[in-house]
Amino acid sequence: MAGFDVASGKRVSNDGGLPVKIVRTVSSAASLSGELRRPLILVPTMGALHAGHISLMKKARKLAGRTGSVVASIFVNPTQFGPNEDFSRYPRTFLRDCQLCREAGVDVIFHPEAEGMYGPGYSTYVNEEQVSGVLCGKSRPGHFRGVCTVVLKLFNIVRPDIAVFGEKDYQQVAVLRRMTANLNVAVRIVTGSTVRERDGLALSSRNAFLSPEERAQAPVIRRALLLARDAVYGRPSDLVKLVRRKIATASLAKIDYLEVLDAKTLEAPGAENRELVVACAVFFGKTRLIDNVRRKVRRGNSKSEIRNSKGEKRG
Amino acid sequence: MAGFDVASGKRVSNDGGLPVKIVRTVSSAASLSGELRRPLILVPTMGALHAGHISLMKKARKLAGRTGSVVASIFVNPTQFGPNEDFSRYPRTFLRDCQLCREAGVDVIFHPEAEGMYGPGYSTYVNEEQVSGVLCGKSRPGHFRGVCTVVLKLFNIVRPDIAVFGEKDYQQVAVLRRMTANLNVAVRIVTGSTVRERDGLALSSRNAFLSPEERAQAPVIRRALLLARDAVYGRPSDLVKLVRRKIATASLAKIDYLEVLDAKTLEAPGAENRELVVACAVFFGKTRLIDNVRRKVRRGNSKSEIRNSKGEKRG
Repeated sequence: MAGFDVASGKRVSNDGGLPVKIVRTVSSAASLSGELRRPLILVPTMGALHAGHISLMKKARKLAGRTGSVVASIFVNPTQFGPNEDFSRYPRTFLRDCQLCREAGVDVIFHPEAEGMYGPGYSTYVNEEQVSGVLCGKSRPGHFRGVCTVVLKLFNIVRPDIAVFGEKDYQQVAVLRRMTANLNVAVRIVTGSTVRERDGLALSSRNAFLSPEERAQAPVIRRALLLARDAVYGRPSDLVKLVRRKIATASLAKIDYLEVLDAKTLEAPGAENRELVVACAVFFGKTRLIDNVRRKVRRGNSKSEIRNSKGEKRG
Repeated sequence: MAGFDVASGKRVSNDGGLPVKIVRTVSSAASLSGELRRPLILVPTMGALHAGHISLMKKARKLAGRTGSVVASIFVNPTQFGPNEDFSRYPRTFLRDCQLCREAGVDVIFHPEAEGMYGPGYSTYVNEEQVSGVLCGKSRPGHFRGVCTVVLKLFNIVRPDIAVFGEKDYQQVAVLRRMTANLNVAVRIVTGSTVRERDGLALSSRNAFLSPEERAQAPVIRRALLLARDAVYGRPSDLVKLVRRKIATASLAKIDYLEVLDAKTLEAPGAENRELVVACAVFFGKTRLIDNVRRKVRRGNSKSEIRNSKGEKRG
């Protein structure tokens, strides 16, 4: 990795790109934060970067402007993985990630060791107890406890003005918004829209695990969710059926969860006008993929009457 | 309360004392924090101030120097009280507290409403899961979850450089030290020693609840703990017996817990040289009082051999 001086953490010039500084310890990241020019934008990642991450970094670069700073963290956070999940086999491509960060205009990469983040006797966790209770929170117990904890730690170390997260992790964003509001964390959360393959599959570091057959079937998730988004008429239970039926056409797909919820609170949709989110997790073999779509709702007179975003009504 | 402009939150001059600003909303406290001169020292309290709190505020004033700022928070935090505890009858003496803060050199009083701190749908809590597991954490389930949560919120709102806590709440300090270290919170925690009545009773807002008979007996706690501190020789179990026997001489006292632990980790004392803390909670009627004492330990050859701080050994 010519051009990156990992050991000293010094800012060095690279072959034709911008300089990137790589920081490995919590204390050096914390002290660096005081020196970086504001606004400071943080993009927390687990590495194995793809075009989805890069779009978040470019968004961060725009928010920072020419004079502000962009920090990307690359940390495969052990506390958000369950004991039988894919922590150890989660892809790690640090050298390539550094190159991509540089090209996306990142100023500093914070890449801590696990021991620096969770030392011996580590014992403090942040629990969001409501928004975390459904979807991924239900199928992955402890996942959002790990996410909230590591994100709060990253916020406290890097002290950004803004943090950028991807909308593919829809519930993660909702949980983190709630967490930062509840704990009075002075970091604004900004989201970037999901980047997709041409066939609609949402980009994910986990796509790399898919076999060719699984990869060929995986776009069914997006197609099913689009059916739910564009359905002219449908109660939440109808939308679920629609998506379930479509996903069932893919022989290798196994639904982990599929829910239609209030887009803001992630509670069961009530009687008021609001926006829905249709969110699902689907296994292809051992690989678990998530995706979501939002859908505007307008209730008419009948309890079961839900119109789509164009205000159309079943005739 | 002439001289305090509570409604406007304006800094106003008082009768002969220093100016004190009273802030009631989270947002105004947060924006004020950016204007206050550094170092900014926070003294979190639940009000009903006594000489113990005042000594912490004076310590804060010293740490702030003439040019820094001292913020005292006064907030009876509902989340750290159990359902059958004394939240509703906890003493509230806000007008007197303001006067005392002013005399102690406090610049700003942050006195939020409960709804401002825990709005509808509040759902995020901070759990320290190890140091919280003994003593008060065991007899008051959820207590330190409430303490950690409110303290982190206060830190995020006020953004102090240093926070001052009393050593009477020994475990609270240990939990908060662990919490801030774990979550990378950039606030230094400083402690002030316990202030006592002339008869040794540790000052506490809850002492106001004691009947004259209970008040007369309450100093037995301190006398019992001093026996443990000064005992020439004693295994932890011996120290427990010593304290228990002494407290039993007070007819109205009922021990809630009494433990001898490693002073730093609050774990069971091990084989190494270290410092112990003897901590107890004692009920007098409905009123629960806590106190603690530290004791240096040096183990000799025998497993049961513990010398006191002067290095004396049983002959």
